[in-house]
Order: sequence, then structure tokens, then C-alpha cells
Amino acid sequence: MQIAYPYLAMEVGSAFASGWTWFKTKVTDFGRCWKKLGKDDPRRVIHSLKVGVAIALVSIFYYYQPLYENFGVSAMWAVMTVVVVFEFSVGATLGKGLNRGVATLVAGALGVGAHHLAKLSGSVGEPTLLGFFVFLQAAITTFMRFFPKIKARYDYGLLIFILTFSLVSVSGFREDEILELAHRRLTTIIIGASACVIISILFFPVWAGEDLHNLIALNMEKLGNFSQGFADEYFRASEEDEASSSKDEKSFLEDYKSVLNSKNAEESLANFARWEPGHGQFRFRHPWKQYLKVGTLTRQCAYRIEALYGYLNADVKASLEVRSKIQEVCTKISTESGKALKELSIAVKNMRQSSSSDIHIENAKTAAKNLNSLLKSDPWEDNVDLLQVIPVVTVASLLIDLVNCIEELADSIYELASNAHFKKLDPTVSPEKPSATVKSPPKDDWHHVVINIDEAPTPAIREEENSSAPNTSIVKYIQV
Amino acid sequence: MQIAYPYLAMEVGSAFASGWTWFKTKVTDFGRCWKKLGKDDPRRVIHSLKVGVAIALVSIFYYYQPLYENFGVSAMWAVMTVVVVFEFSVGATLGKGLNRGVATLVAGALGVGAHHLAKLSGSVGEPTLLGFFVFLQAAITTFMRFFPKIKARYDYGLLIFILTFSLVSVSGFREDEILELAHRRLTTIIIGASACVIISILFFPVWAGEDLHNLIALNMEKLGNFSQGFADEYFRASEEDEASSSKDEKSFLEDYKSVLNSKNAEESLANFARWEPGHGQFRFRHPWKQYLKVGTLTRQCAYRIEALYGYLNADVKASLEVRSKIQEVCTKISTESGKALKELSIAVKNMRQSSSSDIHIENAKTAAKNLNSLLKSDPWEDNVDLLQVIPVVTVASLLIDLVNCIEELADSIYELASNAHFKKLDPTVSPEKPSATVKSPPKDDWHHVVINIDEAPTPAIREEENSSAPNTSIVKYIQV
Repeated sequence: MQIAYPYLAMEVGSAFASGWTWFKTKVTDFGRCWKKLGKDDPRRVIHSLKVGVAIALVSIFYYYQPLYENFGVSAMWAVMTVVVVFEFSVGATLGKGLNRGVATLVAGALGVGAHHLAKLSGSVGEPTLLGFFVFLQAAITTFMRFFPKIKARYDYGLLIFILTFSLVSVSGFREDEILELAHRRLTTIIIGASACVIISILFFPVWAGEDLHNLIALNMEKLGNFSQGFADEYFRASEEDEASSSKDEKSFLEDYKSVLNSKNAEESLANFARWEPGHGQFRFRHPWKQYLKVGTLTRQCAYRIEALYGYLNADVKASLEVRSKIQEVCTKISTESGKALKELSIAVKNMRQSSSSDIHIENAKTAAKNLNSLLKSDPWEDNVDLLQVIPVVTVASLLIDLVNCIEELADSIYELASNAHFKKLDPTVSPEKPSATVKSPPKDDWHHVVINIDEAPTPAIREEENSSAPNTSIVKYIQV
Repeated sequence: MQIAYPYLAMEVGSAFASGWTWFKTKVTDFGRCWKKLGKDDPRRVIHSLKVGVAIALVSIFYYYQPLYENFGVSAMWAVMTVVVVFEFSVGATLGKGLNRGVATLVAGALGVGAHHLAKLSGSVGEPTLLGFFVFLQAAITTFMRFFPKIKARYDYGLLIFILTFSLVSVSGFREDEILELAHRRLTTIIIGASACVIISILFFPVWAGEDLHNLIALNMEKLGNFSQGFADEYFRASEEDEASSSKDEKSFLEDYKSVLNSKNAEESLANFARWEPGHGQFRFRHPWKQYLKVGTLTRQCAYRIEALYGYLNADVKASLEVRSKIQEVCTKISTESGKALKELSIAVKNMRQSSSSDIHIENAKTAAKNLNSLLKSDPWEDNVDLLQVIPVVTVASLLIDLVNCIEELADSIYELASNAHFKKLDPTVSPEKPSATVKSPPKDDWHHVVINIDEAPTPAIREEENSSAPNTSIVKYIQV
């Protein structure tokens, strides 16, 4: 047994050491997680500090003697309101604050009424009637929370309605200063909600509307990046080539996946945005609903891209020989689609009516037509069996489909531009873009137009563009 | 002017009449809306009644003298807890109740500690220190709410933590019976939460787990319906034929669209389900996460189907002659895929390990191979230009792609079946399905196998199947 001790000590020691290592890695992992979360969106850190300040401020109401004497225990409601109402974006905070305020007011009034009515029915009938009222309003209001439209905007208000009505009508039985109580509750709630709204608007405001605006633009940009990079990746000459491109370089080809599931995020942002006052470039009644329409059509494009993505990683690709026949024209469609998407993204982002996307769409459509005639001439001339051709033809067909989708998307963005009064791009302001307003230039001008747009972008455009995307391939393009 | 009176009266009258009509239609619309909402899911009505009963019950705590004397104003917390915690499903209610209870306990203890610590620093330091504590915990906890994993499960708990800590630490300055207050608050919250949980479990419980289970099965069924109906719709002989099929008949072809955006619903149901105790066929630690995996793969199939759907309504379809060449084999793939999806759906729904979906997948794969060889032989023999062939070939290719997707989906369901201990289908129990356990039957048996499965389904299968789907086309199938 004596011999066993050192072993035991060693074992305990090593267990302790490995436990310590485990603990250290956990802590560093956790720390890295926090850092990443803050770095991804520094507004999160600011929001957390803002909430801390707001709660600490409102606690003063509950803390200092003079205020305490005025509001009594009701001051508690101010603290509560701040905790519950303060949301990340101004719109969500405003929506919750207004919901809470209005619901408290209405439910308070109805509760006092119910209490008064019940009192008339004598000491036996009163509790029965009150219980019935509470049951009835709770059941009806809970059912109303199932209506999708009501749920989206007034869910929190209905919750507070049930809460306040129950508390006021039942507690009224206790205290005769029921009106006094309701009044104090409302005042403290208004104080709490105002503190939230003021702090949330004055210090580094996060506007849901702006977030929605940027999200919609970003999603289109992601799809544009994919489109621009797709052809290059698909028509890569050999497998070795493929291996040589690092995974990092390819990661932008998977960015589009987040677009597939962005519906809920867009819808809740649009709901919040509708509560927000005018800010920055957005008026009070900015057409947020139109953004949802644009978002839906963007997702339609993303579904096509999802199908295309499957062919990037297909186990068996068509042979290089088969692919090369339609490489140029497919590259043209893909690149032009990508450029169109990026132009649309920039137009939305900068809130400018721009027709430069039209040129790219026209180019893509003409290339699609060329692809059609190319296929009509049967470029493979029976040298290759149809089986080899199928995936290539499918990719071509999906690309053509994508162009149609993008055209629809562009239409919805024109609608948005006119509803939201996007600024018109003055051709004299950017003389280096003489053909930016030409809707469909003569074919001979393509080369010229495209080079012009490519070589003299606005600074915003340059920032937007992913430098790894094959921007220059278009210059080499020879009309098919 | 006198002449004008009758006109005015008439105008007022007609305005009143039209106003009344407007009001009447609004009211009937509203009523119809309510009725539809209740009919779509009668559990909504039951839930509303349950909430009403729970709130009315708990109001007794606030109402009757003896209880009031025991709990004082704190009884209010019980009403509040019920209003806030009672959710549609058991899992959500349990999760919120546990979050609220645990957060109150922990935050209450920490709040008392903070209050004690602050007291030591004298009358000047106390408010500063308390304010600092409140600020610090609010900021840190708010930031923690941004972690996606924490947000999914503990968001409400963190909110209540901030609330309770602030109230207890600050209000402690007022009352010296701070422990008494914290104790009463905790007791009333436990009473309220227990009332919610008990009512929610005992009377017509709505299990989030069951909902998730059914949603996953239903989504696969919807895709199956599309697959079974697709070929029939796509290869319809003529335009007149198309017009003759009413819109109602076609509506099942659009059901799949809801699958595209079901990610959020699935994720929140899975989060709720993890709080639920064992119920029905589900144990406590049922592998809910695996359902999410199945759901993701189902959506992958749905994206393929979205691409196929585009070809149903394409402006220019390939000519009938072109389509007819591959009609039979495409119909085979489509129908077998649909059957496989439906078998998978039934297997999940009934929690049975079934291999009958394998047969359909094998059939679909063999048909895909046949399609490949058919295309290799170039069935159109240069009579038709490639342009006509493209959409047909693309549809064929997407169908082949869909089969691969379904195979992956089936694999994830096998994993689910083994994790969740699905019952094994005893071959002796259903002697009419002799080949149900055969993984890939000899080709000559196809006809036999398929007819057997088709003609002798379990009652559950018959219910599941959409009778408008072309179930019989497979019988007519002649091997290509």
C-alpha cells in the first residue's frame, strides 16, 4: 500500500493538472467567444452599457427619499419597465414602450370599471363577477394573441393588458385608492419607458429600419459575390487547380446560405421599423413592406443559387472539353448577373435610382440568348454523349433562370425606389459614367460600357466589391 | 336651398347605409377570421380558456382575506407570473417557469449579498456602490443575452435575473425585512408557476415535442405530395388539359412552399421540447436535435423542389414530342421519390423503423440510371434541336438530384430511428408486405412489390395519402 501512494499522488496530480488545463481552455474559449461577439457587432457592447446606465438611473427613483415618498412602492414599476422594455433597436423599444403604456391605460380604465360594476352586485356577487370578468378578458385576449398580424405588433400590449386588468380589478377590492394606484402605476411606467426611449435614441441609436435596409442590401451583395465567383469556380481547368485555391478563398461562395433563412429576421426588423420616427435618410412612413417584397425575391434568387451550388461540388463534373464549349458565354451570364446584383445592392444601400444594373441585366439576357443559339447549333457535334452534357446544360439553364429572377428583383427595387423617393442619379455629377443612364446600349458598345463602369467606380462601389471576384474577366470577353 | 334638403337627407342616408354595410362586412369578416383561427387549431381555444381559468384561480390569492394577510402585496407576483409564464406548449411554460424561479432565487441571493456589501461602506459609499453593482450586473447580463445558445434557452431567466437583482438590492435600502420580501416573492412565483405547469400538463396538454415530431413528418409528406403529383402535371398532354384541372386540385403542388421557411419554427419547438418531461411515445431525453438535422435535409429537398416548380409554370415548355420521350422514366423517378418521402414521413410519424422507403429510393435510383442510359442513346436523334431539349433535361437532372437528397434524408432518419429507439417493424405482423424488408428487390419484382404496397397500406398510410396524387401511374409503368 505504501508503494501505491506515489502513484495515487501522481494520478491525483495529473487529474488536477488535466482538470486545470480543461478549465483554462474553457475560460479562454469563453473569453474568445465574448470578444468575438463584441467584435462582430460592437453595438452589442454599447447596448449593454446603455441598459446598465438606464437601470442604474431609474433605480434612483426607487432609492432617494423624496422621490420615494412621492411614488412609494410604485417606483418599482419604473425599474421593471426599463428592464422589460429596453430592447436592442429603437423600434423595438418604442414599440414595447407604447404597447406597455397604452395597454396599462386602457386595461386600468376597464379594470376600474369592472371593479365598480362588481361592487354594485353586493358582497356575494362581487367576487364571482370579478372572477368572471378576469376569466373572460384573459381568455379573449389570449385568443387574440394568435392572430398573426396582431401578434406581430401588439403581442406585448395584450400581455400587459391581461396583467393590468387582473391586478387593478382584483386589487381594487383591497384598496379604495384604486384610481390613485392606477395613476401612480401609469406615471412610473411612463417615466421608465421614456428613460428607455430617450437613452436608446440619444446615445448611439440602433435603428431597426437601417438594419433592415442594410440586411436587404447585404443579402443581394452576397448573392452577387456568388454569381461573380461561380463561373470561375465551375470552369476551373483541373482538379489540382481546385485544390490550390485555399478554403478561405472559397468561403465567399457559401455566404449566400444565410440568405435562405433570413425571412424571420427581415419580418421582425420590418415590424420594429414601423414604430420608428424618421431618421437619417428614412422618413417616418418609409415603405418597409416593400423591403419584405424585395427580400422575398432575393430569396427566390438564393434558391436558384442553392441549386447551382450543388453542381460546384458534384462528384462527377462534365469533362473539361464539354464544359469549355460553353464556358465563355456561361461566364458572361454569371459575371453579369453578379454585377447586376451588386449594382442593385449598391443602389439600395445608397438609396439612389441607378440604371447601371439594367445594363448588366441586358448583357446577361443577351448572353443567355447567345447561349441558346449556341446550344441550338449543338456545339458538341455528337462527339460526346448526352450524359456528359446534362450537368453542363442544367447549369446553363439554371443560370438563365437566375437572370429572370434577377430581372423580377430589379423591378421590385424600382418600385421601392419610387415609393421611397430614392435620389435620381444626376448624369452630370459623374461624367466618367456617360452610359450609366443608357438602358440597353447597342451591342457594339458593351465592351466600352463595361470597362467604363468597371474602371471608374464610385468609392462606395469599390468598397462593396469583393476583390477576389473575377471582375476583369468581362474585359477579355469576346462576343459569342 | 330647400330643394337641397332631400338630397342632403338622401346623401346622409346613403352614407349611413354604406357605412353600416361597411361595418357589417367588417364585423362578419372579423367573426370569420376568429372562427377560422379556432377551426385551424382548436387547441388555441382550449389554451385561451386554460389561461383564463389559471388567472382567475390565482387571483383568489390576491382576493381572499386570509391569504392576503399571509402574502400581502406580494400575492400580486403570483398573478403576474401566471400571465407571463403561461405559454401555448408545456415545454415553453415549463422553460419560462423554471427560468423565472431559478433566476429569482439566484438574483435574490446575489442581491441580498450586494446589499449587505454596500451597507458596509457607510452612508456615502452605499448608494454609489449599489448603483455600480446594478449597472455592472445589468450590463454583463444584457451582453450575455446576445449569445445565441444562451438566448435560445435562458433569455427569459436572464431578464428576470436583472429585474430581481435590481429590485432586491435597491429596495433593500428601504425595508429591513429584505429576506422576508425575497422569500415571499419566491413563494408566490413558485405558486404561480406551479399553477401554470399543472394546468398546462393536466388539461389537454400541448407538447412542443409532439408538435415538432408532427411538423417534421408533415413537411416530408408535403414534399412527397409534390413529387407524386409533379410528373403528372409536367407531362400533361395539352394546354386545355391544364386549364381543365381546377386550381383547387393543383393547390397541393404549392403546399411545399411552407417547408422553405420552417427553420425558425422547428428550432423554437426543439428548444421548448427539451424542457418537457417524457410524454406519450417520447422519453425525457428524446433526440430532439436529430429532428433539426432531418428538418434541414428536408429543406434541402424543398430547395430542389422549388427549382422544379419553376419548370411547371414556365412560359415555354418543351414540345410534347420532346417531353414524351422521357415521360415514363421521369414519372417513375418522381412518383417513387414521392412514395419514398411519404414512407419516410409515415415512419417518423408512427415511430417505426421501416425499410419500405428503401425500396422506393432504390426504384427511383434505378430509374435515374435508366434515364441516364436513355439520354446516352440520344432519344431525340437530331430531329429536335438542343434548345427544345434543355428544359426537359434540366427537369430530369433536378429529379436525379432530388433522389440523392432523399437518400441523405433517409440516412438521417435511420440515425434518428436508432437514437430514438423506433420500434422495429416485425415482418410477421404484416404478412401482406413480404418484401418490405428486402432492401433492393430484383428488378422483375418491381411491379409486384409496388402494387402490394400500394394496395395494402396500413390505415395510417391511407389517411396520409393525398387521393388526388397519381398513385396508380406506377402500376402502368413498363420498365424502360
